[in-house]
Amino acid sequence: MVSTKKHYTLSELIHGLDVTLKGDPHCLIQGVCPIQQSRPAHVTFLTNPLYRKYLANTQAAAVILSQAEADNCPVNAIISANPHYTYAQIAAYFEKEVAISTGIHPTAIISESAQLDASVTIAAHCVIGEHVKIAANVVIGPGCVIGDGSEIGEGSRLDANVTIYHQIKIGKRARIASGVVIGGDGFGFANQKGVWHKVPQLGSVEIGDDVDIGANTTIDRGALENTVIEDGVKLDNLIQIGHNVKIGAHTLICGCTGIAGSTVIGKNCIIAGACIINGHITITDNVIITGNTGVEKSITEPGIYSSGVVGVVQNQEFRKNNARFYRLENLMQRVKTLESTIKTLIEGKDT
Amino acid sequence: MVSTKKHYTLSELIHGLDVTLKGDPHCLIQGVCPIQQSRPAHVTFLTNPLYRKYLANTQAAAVILSQAEADNCPVNAIISANPHYTYAQIAAYFEKEVAISTGIHPTAIISESAQLDASVTIAAHCVIGEHVKIAANVVIGPGCVIGDGSEIGEGSRLDANVTIYHQIKIGKRARIASGVVIGGDGFGFANQKGVWHKVPQLGSVEIGDDVDIGANTTIDRGALENTVIEDGVKLDNLIQIGHNVKIGAHTLICGCTGIAGSTVIGKNCIIAGACIINGHITITDNVIITGNTGVEKSITEPGIYSSGVVGVVQNQEFRKNNARFYRLENLMQRVKTLESTIKTLIEGKDT
Amino acid sequence: MVSTKKHYTLSELIHGLDVTLKGDPHCLIQGVCPIQQSRPAHVTFLTNPLYRKYLANTQAAAVILSQAEADNCPVNAIISANPHYTYAQIAAYFEKEVAISTGIHPTAIISESAQLDASVTIAAHCVIGEHVKIAANVVIGPGCVIGDGSEIGEGSRLDANVTIYHQIKIGKRARIASGVVIGGDGFGFANQKGVWHKVPQLGSVEIGDDVDIGANTTIDRGALENTVIEDGVKLDNLIQIGHNVKIGAHTLICGCTGIAGSTVIGKNCIIAGACIINGHITITDNVIITGNTGVEKSITEPGIYSSGVVGVVQNQEFRKNNARFYRLENLMQRVKTLESTIKTLIEGKDT
Repeated sequence: MVSTKKHYTLSELIHGLDVTLKGDPHCLIQGVCPIQQSRPAHVTFLTNPLYRKYLANTQAAAVILSQAEADNCPVNAIISANPHYTYAQIAAYFEKEVAISTGIHPTAIISESAQLDASVTIAAHCVIGEHVKIAANVVIGPGCVIGDGSEIGEGSRLDANVTIYHQIKIGKRARIASGVVIGGDGFGFANQKGVWHKVPQLGSVEIGDDVDIGANTTIDRGALENTVIEDGVKLDNLIQIGHNVKIGAHTLICGCTGIAGSTVIGKNCIIAGACIINGHITITDNVIITGNTGVEKSITEPGIYSSGVVGVVQNQEFRKNNARFYRLENLMQRVKTLESTIKTLIEGKDT
Repeated sequence: MVSTKKHYTLSELIHGLDVTLKGDPHCLIQGVCPIQQSRPAHVTFLTNPLYRKYLANTQAAAVILSQAEADNCPVNAIISANPHYTYAQIAAYFEKEVAISTGIHPTAIISESAQLDASVTIAAHCVIGEHVKIAANVVIGPGCVIGDGSEIGEGSRLDANVTIYHQIKIGKRARIASGVVIGGDGFGFANQKGVWHKVPQLGSVEIGDDVDIGANTTIDRGALENTVIEDGVKLDNLIQIGHNVKIGAHTLICGCTGIAGSTVIGKNCIIAGACIINGHITITDNVIITGNTGVEKSITEPGIYSSGVVGVVQNQEFRKNNARFYRLENLMQRVKTLESTIKTLIEGKDT
Repeated sequence: MVSTKKHYTLSELIHGLDVTLKGDPHCLIQGVCPIQQSRPAHVTFLTNPLYRKYLANTQAAAVILSQAEADNCPVNAIISANPHYTYAQIAAYFEKEVAISTGIHPTAIISESAQLDASVTIAAHCVIGEHVKIAANVVIGPGCVIGDGSEIGEGSRLDANVTIYHQIKIGKRARIASGVVIGGDGFGFANQKGVWHKVPQLGSVEIGDDVDIGANTTIDRGALENTVIEDGVKLDNLIQIGHNVKIGAHTLICGCTGIAGSTVIGKNCIIAGACIINGHITITDNVIITGNTGVEKSITEPGIYSSGVVGVVQNQEFRKNNARFYRLENLMQRVKTLESTIKTLIEGKDT
């Protein structure tokens, strides 16, 4: 069976990486694989201690692992201080390049005032507004709409069916997944006699360099100031970012999280999935928020934060726990009664 | 530096508004700004008492504020009983009109049986189904799809890449953001011997006048009756509205909230972000639900409602709290033991 | 008033169904209706005991119900062991066929290497990539994008504006609602010195037969292995499925639920709305998870599971409950003090 995959030697794969190879640099590699399902002629990696048990009998040709694990590696060992990062670098050799027909598809509607670098790819059925600027090597997938005056930085890639509103600024090397909407009006209404009146949303959205945005995530434009996503921020799918929010550089946010308006999140934070962050608060740098946490107030110190009551249990047990929770006041009163009874008892004895 | 922005006098800006101007009606204004970053020749507003500290040194030319704050205003004061609403009215003068090329774009596919008012704008790559009716001054952004038999009322605006299924009725002056899907099948399945069988979704969606719908929000069509969104409802981004839901007039719902099927929500409610509302329940008028609340049962009295345990804390403290919660039964038993021991003690003393 | 609806006799409607008719097989039926708003010449159904009160005075011509309810039915009774399923079968007769213009719309962009069955319908403004295979009787709505190498099985239907990435495999009779995104990159990044580096997402998505996917739901492609959705799975709107997740056959998941990466969910599970399921865990077959549950660990036994504290209350009461929750440690200490005081008291008495 002839493999159509490209082959690399281990020596080629680790070229330029900060790793040590213990083994045969000429060993031919044709792909990467998970350690629990390893295959001959593939590279795998070990980062999760739960998977250590798969190391001894691995079928892989090489394993990326830490120095501490290297002695137990029965095959070629690629020793790295950061095996996950090393894996990301090596796996990139095996990424299928998605075939993109370069150039502007004839069905794309491009405003005459738009400024497109000659290297830009714009797929079928896109609509590019007035005065849009698109820098070198940008790839815009089919069905994208880019509003008037928006700018897309060098090397960015928008997948199919992305919507960018007007006057939005996106930096270099962005990767924006399908269904993302950037720059819709923020949710601002003033109530007058029971009727909600729209507050004009006059700000924009500024997105830094190296930002990834997952499918169907929405980022609203600012009310007066801009909504700002700084360099290196990574956003998962189905995230909602309200107007005027600022997210600091290299912060990573997992899916289904919502951030209400005017909140400021620091740099190098990790916000796990399905968190809900209140509006008008500030979260400092280097904060980790665990999944499903509601953050109702500002966080001023780095650390790991959580909220609520976590722990899935059988529904019957859950119902009991809930009943107990709602009887807490009763419990407190009973303890108070006990305390006063005992006080009386003791004082009675004393007298 | 010549500003290209249009200028207005304060007198022009407050024309027709229910406000009192204390200051110079001829003062020229070129924009609006936030009070914490105020600028010369701009109007700002004060509604949040936390920002009162910025009033004394404001650079703004005028401040919209309440009578109570007016004496402390060092510049022109626009005194209003509802400063946020007055701000919304004045800011509208400075909203950039998004350039829309009027008329029907040649790439739009319009069914012959569709009835479009002469004033309608339909952007590139739209698809308009059979017997669709689109009223005067409607603007349909690029890439929208409107299914057979749907109707869009006067002055409504659909942004890019909106999907409206068949037989949907949308009122006047709707504003529908990108990625919204209205009229997908409700989630109805009947289980027969372990296999789910689709229950036909025969209803539709009726949307009243002056409804705003945020990006990537989804509203399902009814199973038998229609899903109904009444006049003046405001929906934020990434909201899910199940089949047969009815939302009363002038209710406002924040992002990431989900409403399960057949639930009825009253008029003039405010539902904050990330709430999850059970199916087949009724919430009366004038109810406020705070963020991240699960509503499992009907609410029959107006008021402010919440659920669960809220309060973000350091993860270590969170783990302790969780452990305590799950030891509540043990605590209750210990209190019961104490009570009976003391009863015995006291009774023993008595005898 | 002449009805344009097609009419059927009860005998025609129950033909081939596993039911018993008590009444007139020649009775003419022109539609289906809810029991609480029943109409002459319509069929309704009774499954929810809360609606039993509507049975005695129903206007409907026939009611689908269980043997146990049949004696109380004042009109034609269609007796079924599974009335909801029987209703689904009968209602299908009254489903409006959405008019689809068959064939390939001239504005659709189809790669030359794509293999389309002659019976396929592809609507306006679709983009079909290289080597895509589309089987018989597939209907692709307007504005869909299907990436290179993807395959769609016989009889599947994609509504408008669906995005399928490259190399995705979708089975037979899928129904995929608008705004769905299948195959976007999983959320995998390796942190090196404070900067997140993308981990290539080399897997794909495999979707079985008879899968329904609701509007704006997102399913990520696998990192190394594939994300797998087995036969008969039903997904509601705005669900997030992370990379490498596997969902067992005939599992049903309600809206706004998120499933983090590499989690395995069994067959015949029901996961209610707004659940958040942790990554790298396993949930066995036949598990029911109630709404708004956080599942942080594996579930190994079938059953009904829940988490947290549920129960919406007035905000004032909620604040008290929260205060009590955060005083639990204090309460425990007081109980311990009481216990030791009483021990001393009793021991004092004994001596």
